[in-house]
Amino acid sequence: MNKIYLDHAATTPIAPEVFAAMEPYLKEYYGNPSSIYTLGQQAAQAISEAREKVANAIGAKEEEIIFTGGGSESDNTALKGAAFALKDKGRHIITSKIEHPAILSTCQQLEKYFGFDITYLDVDNEGFVDPDDVKKALRDDTILVTIMMANNEIGTIEPIKEIARIVKERDVYFHTDAVQAVGQIPIDVNELGVDMLSMSSHKINGPKGVGALYVRKGVKILPLIAGGAQERNRRAGTENVAGIVGFGKAIELAAENLEENAAYLRNLRDRLINGIENNIDDVILNGPRGEHRLPNNVNFSFRYIEGESILLNLDMLGIAASSGSACSSGSLDPSHVLLAIGHSHETAHGSIRFSLGKGNNEKEIDYVLEVVPGIIKKIREMSPLYEG
Amino acid sequence: MNKIYLDHAATTPIAPEVFAAMEPYLKEYYGNPSSIYTLGQQAAQAISEAREKVANAIGAKEEEIIFTGGGSESDNTALKGAAFALKDKGRHIITSKIEHPAILSTCQQLEKYFGFDITYLDVDNEGFVDPDDVKKALRDDTILVTIMMANNEIGTIEPIKEIARIVKERDVYFHTDAVQAVGQIPIDVNELGVDMLSMSSHKINGPKGVGALYVRKGVKILPLIAGGAQERNRRAGTENVAGIVGFGKAIELAAENLEENAAYLRNLRDRLINGIENNIDDVILNGPRGEHRLPNNVNFSFRYIEGESILLNLDMLGIAASSGSACSSGSLDPSHVLLAIGHSHETAHGSIRFSLGKGNNEKEIDYVLEVVPGIIKKIREMSPLYEG
Repeated sequence: MNKIYLDHAATTPIAPEVFAAMEPYLKEYYGNPSSIYTLGQQAAQAISEAREKVANAIGAKEEEIIFTGGGSESDNTALKGAAFALKDKGRHIITSKIEHPAILSTCQQLEKYFGFDITYLDVDNEGFVDPDDVKKALRDDTILVTIMMANNEIGTIEPIKEIARIVKERDVYFHTDAVQAVGQIPIDVNELGVDMLSMSSHKINGPKGVGALYVRKGVKILPLIAGGAQERNRRAGTENVAGIVGFGKAIELAAENLEENAAYLRNLRDRLINGIENNIDDVILNGPRGEHRLPNNVNFSFRYIEGESILLNLDMLGIAASSGSACSSGSLDPSHVLLAIGHSHETAHGSIRFSLGKGNNEKEIDYVLEVVPGIIKKIREMSPLYEG
Repeated sequence: MNKIYLDHAATTPIAPEVFAAMEPYLKEYYGNPSSIYTLGQQAAQAISEAREKVANAIGAKEEEIIFTGGGSESDNTALKGAAFALKDKGRHIITSKIEHPAILSTCQQLEKYFGFDITYLDVDNEGFVDPDDVKKALRDDTILVTIMMANNEIGTIEPIKEIARIVKERDVYFHTDAVQAVGQIPIDVNELGVDMLSMSSHKINGPKGVGALYVRKGVKILPLIAGGAQERNRRAGTENVAGIVGFGKAIELAAENLEENAAYLRNLRDRLINGIENNIDDVILNGPRGEHRLPNNVNFSFRYIEGESILLNLDMLGIAASSGSACSSGSLDPSHVLLAIGHSHETAHGSIRFSLGKGNNEKEIDYVLEVVPGIIKKIREMSPLYEG
């Protein structure tokens, strides 16, 4: 078992209050929400309450929230849904090079199988998309722009409001993947001006297997999962009632304590960043510093070595962290995000993400700072790339 | 609360053993299965064990099982996945008029948005597809045939093996929606000869929000949810670990006790069918009798009245049943299945499905038989269509 969990961007434990909210729907209230008898309507009511909580957390209306099976489904629904609904209007989509694989792979499908043309915008060396680049890339046949709210690997918080303003000067949909941002930074869909926004439950101490897509009233999408009339005909399939209830509780808790949690995490984050920079040579902080970095994200490249070796050494000490994103693990390719911010393959391979949660504390951070320099030193001494 | 639950085709309660299997993955073992540290690998191992259970239950290999967010996602993945992968080979698909909405709506999307041509086969007055009709409908540009294993409304078990033999004489994929059949009748994908088969967890005393698609080795599909490398690059998104573990346990339990449960349910089913036929006039049993009917399905048309009125009266007595399928409730259209077997709109509107589960007993059935004649009599007396 891992005693110190520093991979909250990969997934989070379910909060006890969330499990308590879910449990009745895993036991006695098992009705199908589409059924008109009492047991069914109890489930429908629970979904309605959860929908209200998700809507409230991002300043949306309840009917603008579609529950999905997770963040990747939300992203696929937004992109394919808009692309297929608008394909007779235009087939150009704009995104960035550092999006989550759920965005990038979907774009590649749209290119390869459905005749769409995708512009992949560059980012600067901290991972920022330049709103002017979005403006320049817009064409008469652009139907959709999708730029993530915050990067899952290096924590860069993109200038979504500025980008949305530019996009919405035209009749073009704007989607943002906010899976890493929800619960960490304030989100108001109207203030931001986005048309669609993807969310995931398991990143905010909710259960796995459930997410949501905000779809502004009037925005047209073709359902990704066609079938029954659930979710106002926008996502078929019997609802994951317990999962939805858990997600509702999790986002409510996250929204209630957002500023306080963020301040707590920023303090831990900067303690870890400063500690690593002050105690280990040849390290590069990936992503920006300060307010434009996710409160819980730390990502370093340790030159001359492999991230996987660091991870395995950390695991032996009970510390869970990540090299790149969990979604890409198992792949031998270096992180597309680290390449996009200008790293060589070698440097990208030696990167570690520590992502913090409210369950972490200073003592844990200090333990990590105590053991990491030794691990790095040991691995570097075995590395043919390292000259000391 | 509903004391007598007779809507198991809509959804089922989670079995206590299933909840017990899930609980550790909702609490302590929360790792992301894609993570290489211990906590992640514990989750990956749990998924692997669940995959083995699902594969064993249908005679498949583990690598042929893709976990999804439910039966509708499985159906959409099979149909769109094959259609888009093979669209340069041909754009003709064969299905039946009585499929689940997840099949029919997907076919309609493929027709309207993607240039596919769909043949919707008729059924006979018991809901059977004629294998000869499939043979006649096959064309040089046919790429896929999809016929359900058992109908969700009237319980007809289709001649899948015969249809598969005909389809597989050609180079055409054969998919079956087995959501209602799994756990009720024996399934062996190799004996049946199917290429793809959809399953759902919450119909067999597993949790909602999880399902699976069997995809025979070598069958090519374009992923419905693109993104990370989960499920061997066939379904992206962090796995619903607890849900998958619960599904694995549920299908294992269902497979272990299949014959015994089926015999028990057939006895209750026929007791209910006989009781209604012997005690109420002007009733029509929808679907076949005997071995070719799902062990747990009872569906009657009560002439001259509305199914919804019957349901509300049953609900007041604590009995949960259904008019048509839960997925279509909220719609005022009559059941497409009942129209397809030859009913008028009026007769279709007066239909009720009782779907039984292993938790039901003869005492419950007898109570239903005691109260239903009175309910029907009362509603008929108020009906302008009824002349006594």
